[in-house]
Amino acid sequence: MKNNPLEKLKTQLDIIFNPSSVAVIGASRDPMKVGHVVLRNIVEAGYKGRIAPVNPKAHEILGLKAYTSLLEVPFSVDLAIIVIPAPFVPQAMRECGEKRVKAIVVISGGFSEVDEEGEALEKEVLEIAEEAGIRVVGPNCQGINNTHVGLCATWPLIKCKGGISLITQSGTLGAAFSCWAEEEGIGISKCVNLGNKADLNELDFLHYFGEDKESRVIAFYIEGVSDGRKFMDIASDISKRKPLIALKGGRSPAGSRAVFSHTGSMAGSDAVFDAVFKQTGVIRAKSLEEFYDFAKVLAYLPLPEGRGVFIVTSTGGSGILAADACEDAGLTLTEPSEEALKRLRSQLPSRCTFRNPFDLTTTTADKFRLVIEENGGNPDIHGFIAIFGDPIPNAAEEIKAASESVKKPILVAYLGGGEVEKVEKTKMHSLGIPVFPSPERAVAAYSALVKYSEFRKRTENSLID
Amino acid sequence: MKNNPLEKLKTQLDIIFNPSSVAVIGASRDPMKVGHVVLRNIVEAGYKGRIAPVNPKAHEILGLKAYTSLLEVPFSVDLAIIVIPAPFVPQAMRECGEKRVKAIVVISGGFSEVDEEGEALEKEVLEIAEEAGIRVVGPNCQGINNTHVGLCATWPLIKCKGGISLITQSGTLGAAFSCWAEEEGIGISKCVNLGNKADLNELDFLHYFGEDKESRVIAFYIEGVSDGRKFMDIASDISKRKPLIALKGGRSPAGSRAVFSHTGSMAGSDAVFDAVFKQTGVIRAKSLEEFYDFAKVLAYLPLPEGRGVFIVTSTGGSGILAADACEDAGLTLTEPSEEALKRLRSQLPSRCTFRNPFDLTTTTADKFRLVIEENGGNPDIHGFIAIFGDPIPNAAEEIKAASESVKKPILVAYLGGGEVEKVEKTKMHSLGIPVFPSPERAVAAYSALVKYSEFRKRTENSLID
Repeated sequence: MKNNPLEKLKTQLDIIFNPSSVAVIGASRDPMKVGHVVLRNIVEAGYKGRIAPVNPKAHEILGLKAYTSLLEVPFSVDLAIIVIPAPFVPQAMRECGEKRVKAIVVISGGFSEVDEEGEALEKEVLEIAEEAGIRVVGPNCQGINNTHVGLCATWPLIKCKGGISLITQSGTLGAAFSCWAEEEGIGISKCVNLGNKADLNELDFLHYFGEDKESRVIAFYIEGVSDGRKFMDIASDISKRKPLIALKGGRSPAGSRAVFSHTGSMAGSDAVFDAVFKQTGVIRAKSLEEFYDFAKVLAYLPLPEGRGVFIVTSTGGSGILAADACEDAGLTLTEPSEEALKRLRSQLPSRCTFRNPFDLTTTTADKFRLVIEENGGNPDIHGFIAIFGDPIPNAAEEIKAASESVKKPILVAYLGGGEVEKVEKTKMHSLGIPVFPSPERAVAAYSALVKYSEFRKRTENSLID
Repeated sequence: MKNNPLEKLKTQLDIIFNPSSVAVIGASRDPMKVGHVVLRNIVEAGYKGRIAPVNPKAHEILGLKAYTSLLEVPFSVDLAIIVIPAPFVPQAMRECGEKRVKAIVVISGGFSEVDEEGEALEKEVLEIAEEAGIRVVGPNCQGINNTHVGLCATWPLIKCKGGISLITQSGTLGAAFSCWAEEEGIGISKCVNLGNKADLNELDFLHYFGEDKESRVIAFYIEGVSDGRKFMDIASDISKRKPLIALKGGRSPAGSRAVFSHTGSMAGSDAVFDAVFKQTGVIRAKSLEEFYDFAKVLAYLPLPEGRGVFIVTSTGGSGILAADACEDAGLTLTEPSEEALKRLRSQLPSRCTFRNPFDLTTTTADKFRLVIEENGGNPDIHGFIAIFGDPIPNAAEEIKAASESVKKPILVAYLGGGEVEKVEKTKMHSLGIPVFPSPERAVAAYSALVKYSEFRKRTENSLID
């Protein structure tokens, strides 16, 4: 089993995300330098392993004893983060080999992305790594993160634990996603920025996150793939178990020229990517916000059994916008049954709109639960979108209770609620209920849930046949 | 001139948004009641006129002397906000007539939106108002706001002053928009929620905001229009001077059924609305977020003279996503001139991507300004999109300086910047530079700017011909 190359890869990547000790080669005392920021973020994220800042001129950085060379570190080092100028990287790599470091993240730029000299340097780095049996992330990348062990070897500081793992060919897009997840309390699980992919590439991390229990959803931003055939095999395999969400840069001629300038990738025909994503069950996002929203909903909600959706709202206008968006997305607004209507009419004021969208008008959170529960047993209603307008307290508790009783996905939009909205949103996110800021974003996210559910059904049926 | 009905309307609506004194009929001591929230928001927004809480049982509310009846208020009352149950509204209206109140906002629901009885009540209210010569907003509405005088007769509390005026047929959508504008420091000018439109409707407020200097942009959410012909006349007239942005609920069959349930409006054929908006120069938003984004950009940026746009970024991935979105939107990514390239190559590191999108990679804010200024004179570049990834300080100051020197629109996206991003975004908004959270939203907003600019050119040319 140990000889299985995928098992070996798993062991190697485990070291990257769960090292017992970390060295930051190029740790700096200057708060403006990346070598300082990365060290500080590892410390502030609460990493529990041993940390060795390496800096030829410093004795202490951020209260940690610093070492003039990696070879002086008195304990063994699992993972080295390299943030020194490119020309010094090969020597640092050799010391890593000597020190028996198990994995390296090269944040430093100045390699193949720059010029031929950089390309030669990158080749040298790779050769040293191969000889020493060390796997490398980067170079020219924005690092890695595993919130579950506080290993924020990237920036900005991201600490909130969650179920989404991220693979990105752009440091900023990973950082933006992570910032939103941090701010909303959604959190991420692991994040890797690929950089130049001299050694490890998106396929390696896809495979690893595919097996990783903490990664409930894998979201990846790519500009091209290293091996199309292999990508299809891995993606089809993972999609059967957990959702994959893709954002692909370079859809258009202008974008694909920019892709070539950015990472030297060939963006490839967008129609081909589209077909590949469809076939392998990868949910494709059209924008960065969709990328985030789709991951958020797929990480937290159960899958609906069909396209029938019921909208319950305290805001008529938002219900209308949601209905428009549902129709655009091919979702079915199932009308409530006569029995459910009868029960609801006896419990709610006549000013409500007794249909789908169900408009409670001015109301309280328990009424949302009432409407959801009274329609929960309807076999043609496969999930709910609850839209809170106004500052309505206790939305979190009532939706949580409704979720537990109906056992169908309930997705929430909350808007126009000022301070109460902020409180309820935070509570809901901590309870695993995803909240969206507008009716249209809620419906788009819900559609992603339906799309993935339909893929899962198709593959399960084809397994049975 | 005083006999001109439009002049008269202006005088009447001036009273609504700039009253010397306000009575809240139904002011409550219970913090959960709307009658309390509205009074508190007027106080907390810093309204400087006299305030009269009217409540038959209270002597004092929120530190203000309360009156058992409007007729006991010892000073004259310009505007009355009514928040008592529907059946008591006619009597309150009569007292308003007696007291010579000049305008009334009826927040209370329970009128034509509910049943025939409510319809009769609404008719009665309207008759009393007409007899007394009082104009009425509502009933069944979420009130009004004029941040410039601190008159937040609505909820939640919105204080931030800005250039966008809002007309909405949905209280929550107005509130959501205002909350975003408050949170971002973009602010609003005036906001009115139409409710049942028993008297004043969207056309009246369109006309008023069209003449109002503080309203630089008018954003309106509608589900139908009261008079199509009149709408076209007013909209065409205003569009020549200032941007109108529309969000229309009930585009789809499901949405238009929901519209009928919500406000009894006929949503009408969406194709007709689309044609009307195009002809009258109204910029149509497809979602609530676009509605907000379009208003934000059109309120603050100068109009570009053409479709040529230049993207400068510190994040390659975001530049690619922006390029894809520009191509989708029919914008032209103009390449820099040879001279500009030469100047930039001598001042910037070779790792930059010297084309459009211009990728600065790891950089500082002054380099964004450099790139913008070096391309500022290019006649085929009509505006800029600057995308900051990473925590880059002083973005606000440098973009402000660049704006002043190139005199072309510069729209900013800022992402992945953690705490620095928040600081810079707030600074930019206070300097009148709109900032967007993703490349795609930035490009969509920029396209709205181009669309309105093209409409203005067409109408100016047709005036000359």
